[in-house]
Amino acid sequence: MKKKNRLQLDDNGKLKHFLTIEGLNRQMLIDILDTAESFTSVTEQNIKKVPLLRGKTIVNLFFEASTRTRTTFELAAKRLSADVLNINIQASATAKGETLLDMLRNFEAMHCDMFVVRHADSGAAHFIAQHAAPHISVINAGDGQHAHPTQAMLDMFTIRREKGEFHRLNVAIVGDIRHSRVARSQIHALSMLGVEDIRIIAPKTLIPTEPDTFGVHVYHDLREGLRDVDVVIMLRLQKERMSGGSLPSEHEYFQLYGLTEEKLALAKPDVIVMHPGPVNRGVEIDSAVADGPRSVILQQVSHGIAVRMAVMSMAMQSHLRDAPGGQR
Amino acid sequence: MKKKNRLQLDDNGKLKHFLTIEGLNRQMLIDILDTAESFTSVTEQNIKKVPLLRGKTIVNLFFEASTRTRTTFELAAKRLSADVLNINIQASATAKGETLLDMLRNFEAMHCDMFVVRHADSGAAHFIAQHAAPHISVINAGDGQHAHPTQAMLDMFTIRREKGEFHRLNVAIVGDIRHSRVARSQIHALSMLGVEDIRIIAPKTLIPTEPDTFGVHVYHDLREGLRDVDVVIMLRLQKERMSGGSLPSEHEYFQLYGLTEEKLALAKPDVIVMHPGPVNRGVEIDSAVADGPRSVILQQVSHGIAVRMAVMSMAMQSHLRDAPGGQR
Amino acid sequence: MKKKNRLQLDDNGKLKHFLTIEGLNRQMLIDILDTAESFTSVTEQNIKKVPLLRGKTIVNLFFEASTRTRTTFELAAKRLSADVLNINIQASATAKGETLLDMLRNFEAMHCDMFVVRHADSGAAHFIAQHAAPHISVINAGDGQHAHPTQAMLDMFTIRREKGEFHRLNVAIVGDIRHSRVARSQIHALSMLGVEDIRIIAPKTLIPTEPDTFGVHVYHDLREGLRDVDVVIMLRLQKERMSGGSLPSEHEYFQLYGLTEEKLALAKPDVIVMHPGPVNRGVEIDSAVADGPRSVILQQVSHGIAVRMAVMSMAMQSHLRDAPGGQR
Repeated sequence: MKKKNRLQLDDNGKLKHFLTIEGLNRQMLIDILDTAESFTSVTEQNIKKVPLLRGKTIVNLFFEASTRTRTTFELAAKRLSADVLNINIQASATAKGETLLDMLRNFEAMHCDMFVVRHADSGAAHFIAQHAAPHISVINAGDGQHAHPTQAMLDMFTIRREKGEFHRLNVAIVGDIRHSRVARSQIHALSMLGVEDIRIIAPKTLIPTEPDTFGVHVYHDLREGLRDVDVVIMLRLQKERMSGGSLPSEHEYFQLYGLTEEKLALAKPDVIVMHPGPVNRGVEIDSAVADGPRSVILQQVSHGIAVRMAVMSMAMQSHLRDAPGGQR
Repeated sequence: MKKKNRLQLDDNGKLKHFLTIEGLNRQMLIDILDTAESFTSVTEQNIKKVPLLRGKTIVNLFFEASTRTRTTFELAAKRLSADVLNINIQASATAKGETLLDMLRNFEAMHCDMFVVRHADSGAAHFIAQHAAPHISVINAGDGQHAHPTQAMLDMFTIRREKGEFHRLNVAIVGDIRHSRVARSQIHALSMLGVEDIRIIAPKTLIPTEPDTFGVHVYHDLREGLRDVDVVIMLRLQKERMSGGSLPSEHEYFQLYGLTEEKLALAKPDVIVMHPGPVNRGVEIDSAVADGPRSVILQQVSHGIAVRMAVMSMAMQSHLRDAPGGQR
Repeated sequence: MKKKNRLQLDDNGKLKHFLTIEGLNRQMLIDILDTAESFTSVTEQNIKKVPLLRGKTIVNLFFEASTRTRTTFELAAKRLSADVLNINIQASATAKGETLLDMLRNFEAMHCDMFVVRHADSGAAHFIAQHAAPHISVINAGDGQHAHPTQAMLDMFTIRREKGEFHRLNVAIVGDIRHSRVARSQIHALSMLGVEDIRIIAPKTLIPTEPDTFGVHVYHDLREGLRDVDVVIMLRLQKERMSGGSLPSEHEYFQLYGLTEEKLALAKPDVIVMHPGPVNRGVEIDSAVADGPRSVILQQVSHGIAVRMAVMSMAMQSHLRDAPGGQR
């Protein structure tokens, strides 16, 4: 924890890398939410651009393909007026046998300023941040089953916009908690922001082996778990898991853990329904709920741009402060 | 017709989507040509950029690969100072089983402003326009065998630049009319702009089943059809058709329907030769003609940028007018 | 030589295309180095952008995939405020049977200003420059085994920065000289800039068949060749060559021609070690040397951006001068 804290923050305690929710403190999360709030007006105005990162070069280092996530970071960067390089690593230099570190050194030498990293291995973004030059900021855009902190922060932003305060909320996360970097980051953020009743709802095979370390309440029955919640977060079911034997059929899963209007009626009347997308309609969630009046799924997408603009600009501020001729 | 009209125009009768020539009226086509005229100077000046769409996000949604068409839209957008996202759908989210509508909703939530759609299915751009949020404009960059309206308009622009007036012209379109979205859009545009003598020249297997509904004259003999024409538009022969049995060999096709200098001599002395590209040299057209003094094929390409800038900026104007805080 | 000279220079003797070091003169190389010097401050300042090529369109025409080289040109272009189109030719129009010349004509008609060409065939960039319209500049980003002149110039820039003067230096190039476009361009540049002692060090199978035409000294023994050199340039060993039988095993190659600290001790104490990247660690160079105090490999990468900005802006200046309404 200490070490991660040190890695993510600069000497003034400001955000330098954004790798995981762990190791940050409540105030930092609130700073991110407040900064994102100031950017929502940018994304809604006619000229959706601010010159904050003009002349900066942001590299999307995607070791794992994800058009959707890459697009949100690319849009956020362009709306901050940064130059963006999209690097798909499978198709790139590693084919020539270049090591990861040599590749990083090269982008640093080209005076790039920020790496947005997506990787199938847990810890990849940390590794890159540990080995990056001092003038580089690293943003974790999802690493293995470890963390997806910008997703968690856009979820927190959505909850705060809809519900105002965190500490009296009951929040349920439903689905494959065990393998989900999104859930892991959400639980840390919810806990840090003061949510007292965090529930995870899943079959036993999809619950983390040591869930109590998170201080969450475990439910195996969806109806029971949904009772009186203010927020329900559905996770995307990775269909690949199905064949692994750890799950019943899609149909059976939907019967037990799929969110329908009838089950949602057990939650508070003003419950909001969230999902990181893309939605598997009829698997983890019924279309009537996904498109229904309680769904804030598309608001999450909108807020994703503002939150990523916030994180990118905050991390770059740290970098400017540290630079030899900083604060120019 | 009525319905399509309503879909393409906003409440003030201005262009909102650009999906097909049908349903528009003569004045709208002339507005597009006049607007394009004003953009030709931009593409010819030293700094080929105007700030008209600064801060706007244009998404090239290409469900069918076409580097050439995508490039012209990308250049047009960049010269209007817009931000461009290139999304290749095969490689993208549909791999994760996301529905088309969910994908659209996501781009809308990211505050994108315009979709440029290329799709192998006829009607795809209409479908997307019908289901898009009110703040989105849709431009059809080619849908199946249905329409390719920006190609038709750049052709009209080229004809007007070369010939001045439309109504006394004899225009021949030669080749696979039946399967050509380009021909379909051209015939509508030529007819709407007052061309009285529109001829289609092709073997019987490549004539549309109900050609007379277009009010065009059908020829099966190239020499006969070319007599005294002012404009000849050659279509690209899709080589895939060859194997389908609806066509003779390339060599035989060239003998009968390939445009040579000798055949072109039957047309008016100041005839212009057009082709949407890429050209199959020695199949539908002889190199001596494609590169000869009557060819305006490369002018068409140049005008394509100005016409696309015109359509994009006009559609975006409608959007600005309709926006809650429009005309800011 | 004369002809190449004419092709690369405009009527005023200024750089128009940058295809190869041959045919240029010493002063032109020095102009490039001096211009690059002025751009190093741009790449090091906070807002790494100058408006020099705003509104210009630069097309990266890559017939051979190279993310690394493409990235450096893309960054250089963006930092000059140009618009960049990345065209991967395999995936593009040639699939539709379009000829190379038709493709060029199209980009020209779209008012593109510069082609950056990478091609597996020697002479491809020359061919394109010969056939390009007068308003187009062509930059060779590597053609077959022929030339890679921007790489050579960034190497010269690095040597000048580290050593000041050229004419008293001893420079050794080690590795597969025979097949290396990088070596070919380096030897021409070193010679033109006045380096008297140019050495090439390689097994006989990797020495060009007529090396003496270059006026270089040939060594087959690495230790002997390294004696008292100021600069050692290691080439990347193409592993594909191994299986061709012209080379021993990687292990054996490293024993004989791999650069280690022990062998490097034979050179001058202030020797600098260069490599065009990506490095094959443990094949042509030991990691201790590649990452050691004498290595300037990453400086080369940094300088690559400034040198490419220099070449691009100089070639575009020529173009502006020649334009009908030039110097606007």
